[in-house]
Amino acid sequence: MYFMDRSNPIGVFDSGIGGLTVVKRINSFLPNENIVYFGDTARVPYGTKSNETVTEYALQDANFLVKKNVKLIVVACNTVSSVAMDVLRKKYDIPVIGMIKPGALSAVEATKNGKIGVIGTNATINNKAYSTELKKLDKKLSVLEKACPLFVPLAEEGWTDHKATRLIAQEYLLEMREQGVDTLILGCTHYPILADVIQEVMGRSVTLIDSGTAASTIVETHLHGKGLRNISNHLGFDDFYVSDLPGKFREIAERFLGKKVENISKVDIDYITGLK
Amino acid sequence: MYFMDRSNPIGVFDSGIGGLTVVKRINSFLPNENIVYFGDTARVPYGTKSNETVTEYALQDANFLVKKNVKLIVVACNTVSSVAMDVLRKKYDIPVIGMIKPGALSAVEATKNGKIGVIGTNATINNKAYSTELKKLDKKLSVLEKACPLFVPLAEEGWTDHKATRLIAQEYLLEMREQGVDTLILGCTHYPILADVIQEVMGRSVTLIDSGTAASTIVETHLHGKGLRNISNHLGFDDFYVSDLPGKFREIAERFLGKKVENISKVDIDYITGLK
Repeated sequence: MYFMDRSNPIGVFDSGIGGLTVVKRINSFLPNENIVYFGDTARVPYGTKSNETVTEYALQDANFLVKKNVKLIVVACNTVSSVAMDVLRKKYDIPVIGMIKPGALSAVEATKNGKIGVIGTNATINNKAYSTELKKLDKKLSVLEKACPLFVPLAEEGWTDHKATRLIAQEYLLEMREQGVDTLILGCTHYPILADVIQEVMGRSVTLIDSGTAASTIVETHLHGKGLRNISNHLGFDDFYVSDLPGKFREIAERFLGKKVENISKVDIDYITGLK
Repeated sequence: MYFMDRSNPIGVFDSGIGGLTVVKRINSFLPNENIVYFGDTARVPYGTKSNETVTEYALQDANFLVKKNVKLIVVACNTVSSVAMDVLRKKYDIPVIGMIKPGALSAVEATKNGKIGVIGTNATINNKAYSTELKKLDKKLSVLEKACPLFVPLAEEGWTDHKATRLIAQEYLLEMREQGVDTLILGCTHYPILADVIQEVMGRSVTLIDSGTAASTIVETHLHGKGLRNISNHLGFDDFYVSDLPGKFREIAERFLGKKVENISKVDIDYITGLK
């Protein structure tokens, strides 16, 4: 057991780079907090895999962060959040914050006509994670869910403003538009990268919900409530660990966070799989 | 050590479903041979990962097949073939057949103007596996290589005849067409799934090379040479093992092989990673 202190870092993990959209939010909302990030780039993506496999990988990822003495874990991956929250919460004493509940709460606040759309990976959508959470908040909501498996590779390819991306978005989002949803949850931490084209296809009047933003406010609440909010006057550090291809990760992280990213280390995947 | 017999199966492995295009060729070319297939669906895809990680995974996959008493291993994955052939061949006494050399040989036979195109994953193209092999065969060849990372997710999504696929293919293949290649190597075992749209974009006069077909003839040569060709008069069996989502694999395998597929088993990924 280690001593839990305000200056301990926040742990954030994801299957790969998507969780960086969440780091960006935490950086801007809680700039003096330190962050340790783990991206499982040796086994990315998670959204096409089974619940059992995703749960096993998630436990290994979280164990890695716990060994780094984090004071709170952010599951910056909707796929993991949709299947493994109970297992993770049962295992650790520190708070574990997922993407689903914060995103659902924000969507309920934002909708006016009660029609909410959710897009995500196959795993997240098949698990009906968002619709279950939304219906708990308000039974009368009409929820439309759609898996968009090509959005992750398009975001990773960097085709954020490409004709093909627009065409694919038009097809995936057709029913959302026809049904007149006024609020759309980006139920995958990669999707904010494609927010512009998604907004364009959905129209200006539709509110896009980025679960990472919503989760950042919940992180603040938890830390404050436990007396664990960092009180330093300095900017926090971000430490990044990935299980493969640190060079590629750096490139994307710098473009993405809009700053130089120095602290990226590769962790051997054998070490991660050994963290049972 | 086990007794090697003509009736032992051929082992085939891939990161996921792509290798099924190779199984289809072996089935049709060597119908009385038995096949044991391993698809590493818990860690798919390989083409976006580093050489070290791909090599580690490949050794574990091959070890699994060796435990099934295979008489020969087909590496039905261009990414693995582009990085791990030496390591695999050093490790095993049985023949190990990759995709690169058979594909390169076929392309050299097919080209008339000496301009050959190669498409594949990031890993395969960055490793320059095909161009190195092609230049060994004929220094005067002009080789144009291009990574097409969206083709794998498009094939897995089943968008084989979609406007977006055509648009993406037009962009990826633009330089190939401008340079007038007359032969195009499909340097990823997923790509034959998209052969129609690739052929349409390239034009009828361009020859597409499917490395799986080329490899099947090499398999025959090896088995014959070692007196290990199956002499049974019956159709061989296909046994499939995957590290995740056997149900999804069955669906794709049946559509793909055009027959009922009964023997699909899930192997725990912990068992695979333990096969050092």
